[in-house]
Amino acid sequence: MFKRITIIGLGLIGGSLGLSIKRHRFAREVVGVSRRRKTLTRALKIGAVDRVTLNSTEGIKDADLIILATPILKIIDIFKRIKENLKEGCIVIDVGSTKNFVSRKIEKEIPECVSYVGCHPMAGSEKKGIDFARSDLFKGNYCILTRTRDTQREALLKIRKFWEGLGMKVVIISPEKHDRIISSLSHLPHAVSVALINSLNNLELKLSSGGLRDTTRIAASDPELWRDIFLTNRKNILREIGNFEKSLKILKNLLKKSDKAGLFKFFHRAKVIRETISV
Amino acid sequence: MFKRITIIGLGLIGGSLGLSIKRHRFAREVVGVSRRRKTLTRALKIGAVDRVTLNSTEGIKDADLIILATPILKIIDIFKRIKENLKEGCIVIDVGSTKNFVSRKIEKEIPECVSYVGCHPMAGSEKKGIDFARSDLFKGNYCILTRTRDTQREALLKIRKFWEGLGMKVVIISPEKHDRIISSLSHLPHAVSVALINSLNNLELKLSSGGLRDTTRIAASDPELWRDIFLTNRKNILREIGNFEKSLKILKNLLKKSDKAGLFKFFHRAKVIRETISV
Repeated sequence: MFKRITIIGLGLIGGSLGLSIKRHRFAREVVGVSRRRKTLTRALKIGAVDRVTLNSTEGIKDADLIILATPILKIIDIFKRIKENLKEGCIVIDVGSTKNFVSRKIEKEIPECVSYVGCHPMAGSEKKGIDFARSDLFKGNYCILTRTRDTQREALLKIRKFWEGLGMKVVIISPEKHDRIISSLSHLPHAVSVALINSLNNLELKLSSGGLRDTTRIAASDPELWRDIFLTNRKNILREIGNFEKSLKILKNLLKKSDKAGLFKFFHRAKVIRETISV
Repeated sequence: MFKRITIIGLGLIGGSLGLSIKRHRFAREVVGVSRRRKTLTRALKIGAVDRVTLNSTEGIKDADLIILATPILKIIDIFKRIKENLKEGCIVIDVGSTKNFVSRKIEKEIPECVSYVGCHPMAGSEKKGIDFARSDLFKGNYCILTRTRDTQREALLKIRKFWEGLGMKVVIISPEKHDRIISSLSHLPHAVSVALINSLNNLELKLSSGGLRDTTRIAASDPELWRDIFLTNRKNILREIGNFEKSLKILKNLLKKSDKAGLFKFFHRAKVIRETISV
């Protein structure tokens, strides 16, 4: 599918991509780039990459596909550093969890002869780093690709085939729609989860219920990653937090009034909606 | 341990208790009481009970231990119905998720010759009903027993031994303290989870992230059960919701100001606290 794929950023997603690409033999060579020597050694050892370098300019040399897999604000920094040395005809993708900010920045600066496709593989966990990388991380999950006026059809189709080849279900929408949908389905749950854990003020955490454990699992996620997501999808997330606050206020008022029927209805509605989401 | 144990209410908890008691041979006979004939048939079939009846007065005849395992408001109704026919020297326990309301009501009305111990086995799931009953549901989890001025020492020790025999770690505190701690560790996460799912207003739920699935798993729980929990622990839950709202407001303000360092700190603090909770 590609001669040389370069992955910049070898965390959970970058590392898992390396493993998955190698397993599917989607490239003759996979090159890994990271700031940390330890990560590079580990990536080589688990077989996520064939060759490693600390230098991104050296890493992207002759690559047909460059995958930017760092936290969002770093994606932009790295792109600025490598954009002059991209091979003619290559495709650049990123795997950040917000798309409007990144695609605008990259499309503004990208050379004519290079294509860009924004990608959001909806896989991951609260675990951070290459030690948790798995070749089957992507299988069966959705991957959102974003299309803008600048998106080149051929590159989009090729990238679609790439993710489908890794076992993902691909959906193509605009970066704006992506950020709107995901602010509600992923960023809001994160906001609620971290606010919840930060509101606890007792020391009896050993008595934690399964409910607390589940609702706050994602609060253990990488703070840098999530800071960047929040900063680059600010307005959508603020709107969703507002909607959530209204919903919580309804519950609070029902409880204040000891409204037996109203509480039942509120809980029942939640159950019905929740059951439409696959486990 | 007991000659005859009667379980009133054969849902997830009652059914699992039957299976677990039978497996540990803690009673010569286990009697099951339910309003629904179908539940009784099922309980007999899976071996959760030895004998069944729709009639609670008949069910408690000669029982040494009576376990009230219905939603909280029903516990009180049932207790009023059976209290005149309790065997001298028997022990009554309930397994409701709030303790102050139930223990006050029961202790006010309980006959002299009978003991009561409030119990909260911290096990369960969003699944409802005997079809999900498992003999190992309790193993390894905490069980909170509540002690008041009226609690009889001998009964308390016996019930402690009972839960420990089923593999639970027992903690003994006052009903007031129980309700305060659990409002923060279990009832608040529930409030947040149902408010979250009820605030979603888009139809792209197929794109749900693992984060949304986890944070809202408990929102699929039994509405009646949770209505009763909320109604009987109102003040504590309202206070905890207030604390949570303050925490969410801090996050919102950091985001409004695009406070990069503040957001990192907020997410980092959540990660540190979350990591002290066992998976």
